[in-house]
Amino acid sequence: MNFTRRKLFVTAAAATAATALTPLAPARAAMPLAGGQVPGFYRYKVGDYEITAVMEGVRRFPLPDALVSNAKKDEVSLALAEAYLPKDMMTITYTPVVVNTGKKLIVFDTGNGELGAKGTNGATGQFIKNFKAAGFDPAKVDTVVISHFHLDHVDGLLTLDNKPVFPNAEVMVPEVEWKFAMDDANMAKARKLDVDILFNRARHNFGVIKNPTQYQWGKEVAPGITAIGTPGHTPGHTSFALQSGSGKLLIQTDVTNLSALFVRHPDWHLLFDMDGNLAEQTRRKFFDMAIAEKTQIQAFHHPFPGLGHVEKDGKGYRWVPEMWLPTI
Amino acid sequence: MNFTRRKLFVTAAAATAATALTPLAPARAAMPLAGGQVPGFYRYKVGDYEITAVMEGVRRFPLPDALVSNAKKDEVSLALAEAYLPKDMMTITYTPVVVNTGKKLIVFDTGNGELGAKGTNGATGQFIKNFKAAGFDPAKVDTVVISHFHLDHVDGLLTLDNKPVFPNAEVMVPEVEWKFAMDDANMAKARKLDVDILFNRARHNFGVIKNPTQYQWGKEVAPGITAIGTPGHTPGHTSFALQSGSGKLLIQTDVTNLSALFVRHPDWHLLFDMDGNLAEQTRRKFFDMAIAEKTQIQAFHHPFPGLGHVEKDGKGYRWVPEMWLPTI
Repeated sequence: MNFTRRKLFVTAAAATAATALTPLAPARAAMPLAGGQVPGFYRYKVGDYEITAVMEGVRRFPLPDALVSNAKKDEVSLALAEAYLPKDMMTITYTPVVVNTGKKLIVFDTGNGELGAKGTNGATGQFIKNFKAAGFDPAKVDTVVISHFHLDHVDGLLTLDNKPVFPNAEVMVPEVEWKFAMDDANMAKARKLDVDILFNRARHNFGVIKNPTQYQWGKEVAPGITAIGTPGHTPGHTSFALQSGSGKLLIQTDVTNLSALFVRHPDWHLLFDMDGNLAEQTRRKFFDMAIAEKTQIQAFHHPFPGLGHVEKDGKGYRWVPEMWLPTI
Repeated sequence: MNFTRRKLFVTAAAATAATALTPLAPARAAMPLAGGQVPGFYRYKVGDYEITAVMEGVRRFPLPDALVSNAKKDEVSLALAEAYLPKDMMTITYTPVVVNTGKKLIVFDTGNGELGAKGTNGATGQFIKNFKAAGFDPAKVDTVVISHFHLDHVDGLLTLDNKPVFPNAEVMVPEVEWKFAMDDANMAKARKLDVDILFNRARHNFGVIKNPTQYQWGKEVAPGITAIGTPGHTPGHTSFALQSGSGKLLIQTDVTNLSALFVRHPDWHLLFDMDGNLAEQTRRKFFDMAIAEKTQIQAFHHPFPGLGHVEKDGKGYRWVPEMWLPTI
């Protein structure tokens, strides 16, 4: 063999020393470092529908002690390390989905928006920038479908000065989530535990965007796109089954957060799941159904672009990303 | 639970029929389908160096009977299906790598170029387009490092009318590959078997780009970037170990082709491997070393952007893509 481990790597510093006596190369200005990333979108077809996964951002923060309520922090760290992620940090990706049916332009969830982006140094709040890079115009959006009322899904509805980001769109919300969030008794209970931010933001956002359309589980939110009740994460948490021609796609929303944790360990209960047991039951049923149908899944919190398949792997599941294609 | 399998999907046709009697929505021009994909590049840092993986294309063709010389076509089809790829097609991604050291702009391999792109309807030959989208200028390239002389690595050196694509670059080639390809006896042997295209193209390309610099295994091709002999795929096939500060990266070139086949089944011998046994030996040693060092790998033929880790999985290995990040 022609390589040994010792000799694999040579540091640039050592190399510079070793080559210090060689003649200078012809003078040419160095190419400055680019610093920037490619625009964050990825496009594919499902039947006649054009789907665009749009990166809203990635947020990384110190791993909370109780990110998983029924696993030790060390176990969570190990699962992160096994996925080659920093073991002392949580990494959350946010990927809203745009569907162009050819007749309607539909946005599924909005990301953190300008409010959520404050103080994150561009790590989040990139949805509109990437949405425009993908060739879209917020004024041309016909429908915004909200899956549930967590802030990373609804705060992108409004600008910082409370103007609608999608001025001409019908906003649709799950009837179950609406009833839960608008119930004063539920809000009072949450306030006692200091977890009423969902209620506050919902009332704020839908105080500006008045009378959103309430949609029901089992019914369509648009032609070929059915709302599926997947409660647990929140009471009204909703996923979507899209079919066009023979093409199928499940938009899972937050059935799992980071795949390296919650696809791998479906029994783990995320801090942000309001009912951990129900969320787990929903997750297992949803994945088993996707596996039975061999249907691809678009996931809000999996690594971008969040398109892939789930399969059984021992006691848990495994996430298999779809191959990136340069044409659609 | 709130969903059943039967009700998951509703076809758009059925939906249209069901909603045919609802009043028309306010007239607004439909957003035309975009049709295009995001530019094909992905950027990340390794120490002080900026790495840009640049998509050259993806080619899909009917699965050859003997794509794997020591496995049955059915077994190969099964492995493709297990990766959710079309089971009767081979899918090859081409991803050259650009390294900006801050002082030098270096391109590792060139893709199929204009010649290779002919007749592929834009499926390949996209390197220069994506290279420019990433902010680079071919005239600013200091060095082009060629890993081996297969056409999908060297044909991008020249335009269709035989002009250098990188007019100011030093072109560097592996000494071992050069000696092999320029040996008339080797070429005569290959011609008898009608497999002399590598020789023909090498002599054509390096007839235009005269006297490329020959580099040696175990030595640097640029500061901090060491050539590693990884023969088998071709006699002079080369990989690269890059280190900057504490950052490390292995540029594996063609140690494996499609990961779903040859990472999963390291014992499979690819039709294009000139010495299948040696290629397998190299592959196992290379991966075991990467695993021991926990070093990330940049792979030419894995799904774009081709950045990830390899780990043991039963008798074979598993490819774990790195998480896509919106900032570098």
